[in-house]
Amino acid sequence: MAEQPRVLRETFGRRREVSESARALGLVPRVGIVLVARGSSDHAAVYARYLIELATGLPVSIAPPSLYTRYRAAPALDGWVAIGLSQSGQTPEIVQTLRALAERGARAVAVTNAADSALAREAELVVDLACGAERAVPATKTFTASVAAIGVLAAVWGAVPWSTADERRAVDAVEVALSDEHAVESVARAALAADVVTYLGRGFGYATALEGALKLREMTGLAAEGFSVADYLHGPVAAAGPRTHVVACAAPGPALADVVAAVDAVAARGAQTLIVAPEGVRVGQRSTLTVAAGLPEPLTVLPMTVRLQQVALLAALQADVDPDTPFGLAKITLTS
Amino acid sequence: MAEQPRVLRETFGRRREVSESARALGLVPRVGIVLVARGSSDHAAVYARYLIELATGLPVSIAPPSLYTRYRAAPALDGWVAIGLSQSGQTPEIVQTLRALAERGARAVAVTNAADSALAREAELVVDLACGAERAVPATKTFTASVAAIGVLAAVWGAVPWSTADERRAVDAVEVALSDEHAVESVARAALAADVVTYLGRGFGYATALEGALKLREMTGLAAEGFSVADYLHGPVAAAGPRTHVVACAAPGPALADVVAAVDAVAARGAQTLIVAPEGVRVGQRSTLTVAAGLPEPLTVLPMTVRLQQVALLAALQADVDPDTPFGLAKITLTS
Repeated sequence: MAEQPRVLRETFGRRREVSESARALGLVPRVGIVLVARGSSDHAAVYARYLIELATGLPVSIAPPSLYTRYRAAPALDGWVAIGLSQSGQTPEIVQTLRALAERGARAVAVTNAADSALAREAELVVDLACGAERAVPATKTFTASVAAIGVLAAVWGAVPWSTADERRAVDAVEVALSDEHAVESVARAALAADVVTYLGRGFGYATALEGALKLREMTGLAAEGFSVADYLHGPVAAAGPRTHVVACAAPGPALADVVAAVDAVAARGAQTLIVAPEGVRVGQRSTLTVAAGLPEPLTVLPMTVRLQQVALLAALQADVDPDTPFGLAKITLTS
Repeated sequence: MAEQPRVLRETFGRRREVSESARALGLVPRVGIVLVARGSSDHAAVYARYLIELATGLPVSIAPPSLYTRYRAAPALDGWVAIGLSQSGQTPEIVQTLRALAERGARAVAVTNAADSALAREAELVVDLACGAERAVPATKTFTASVAAIGVLAAVWGAVPWSTADERRAVDAVEVALSDEHAVESVARAALAADVVTYLGRGFGYATALEGALKLREMTGLAAEGFSVADYLHGPVAAAGPRTHVVACAAPGPALADVVAAVDAVAARGAQTLIVAPEGVRVGQRSTLTVAAGLPEPLTVLPMTVRLQQVALLAALQADVDPDTPFGLAKITLTS
């Protein structure tokens, strides 16, 4: 987890190399982009759906692997780019799906931590995350590095709303968050005391909410769940009450007001609430876990995600779970 | 809920009318299909992603509304068809998103229970679900009617793996399930006794799992959740234990073996399990709530969904909740 600043710097630093490779290959989406991933990488795909569609002006979709591996769908994908994301590059179903999409005409890109993996071999272009070995089962570096890699691809194929100076400041913000674990302790304790921990976000912060929930669930076995606020208020909020702990990702941007309204709604039902937000973003008088202020929204989610990783890690330590190998989880999903 | 056989018959009966309208309008997807929906309608969109991609050989994606209403994405959608699904046809954000997609070149279709609604006015072609008024907040008819409407559209634009005789048999199976509530009582009691109720499926059964979880959650306030089995085993299974009740949708088809493997995995962690399946599909010696045998997989999910509606309804009655207006939920999500 502590290696994220180095990994992020290296991944952001690949923009020129990736750009030159994509140009040499003529690897540019013309019709659309389709993403395939699972777990934390799937949350990076949720982030990518927003960023790449905004950057390129082309529709972005997330493929359900079973549609290709089990039902043998064979859509026409000329002009499409397919991006497979997998930390290990070994999850068989992700490899098979990327191959199936390429066989139908999509140009294949792999975002992986293993440049010699099966996934990388299916791809024309590989964005190597260079995280080194992920010792812990719940990947932490991989999600943030995948987000940075998605930023690189979006910048290669379109326009991103930030500068390279902003990227450096985002890495600094990650470093600051990592150096200040103390602020997280009471939050972790409150999460452990709840029956259900619900992570809410919208837009770029939705990816962070999903990732925060998965990390807490993987590391502690708590019933943690992530929702987009609009979906949540449409029905699942029915389960919210005094035994619910809500963690809201209040990224500054056009969806912030929706997140604030959702926090008010769950608080009115008696739920406990915690806000994760940049300094200066206040949601009423509510307890807030902060990150550095002033970053563009798509980069703010990097230190915000680190905050949620810290919550999961400290909760696991307080609950006396070994966070590196919890609950018999295996690193590679072996659905073929 | 009891009106579903009539509603399904009428919706399936619209195939010729919808086909003629689509032909007259030249409303046929050439590049892809994009779906926009929320709640139960979003679960029908999950079903549509499988069925329409298989039927048409074109990529199908599900749009995140905030990308259009908050972030103002403007992707190029020439050759696309956009399908908005909404029971009331009034949810402002779904209406706005369908309009945004149409402004970018997509031809707009509405699947709604209100042919004079705002959503219908944005569309060139309306598939009217003709459910009549949904009195209860948790829509039941709407999901199954939307699934039938998706079947109609898939048949108009491509080839579906069933005959009209199969459609009649599917409606009969819904009727049989509705007439046999007794089998559900003990299942509802077991769900109420759990801390978390986890619904699992894959492929077409994944949509049913999502819908079953939402209905139980809306009607009882229980912490119910739905997962695709491959995603679930990759991480969220960490929370499964003796206080978890798992309901597995064992639709016969190419994903059945994955569902069976997931049931074995959660049972090994001490979770209680219940199978919903056609007669003759056995998952070990496990307790099974059955529907009629012999239907093609995409139609089997109709009576299977009715079984899960019954579980939610009987659980609500046993818990003394008014299932029609639980927990202050409003019918229309008012995110603008």
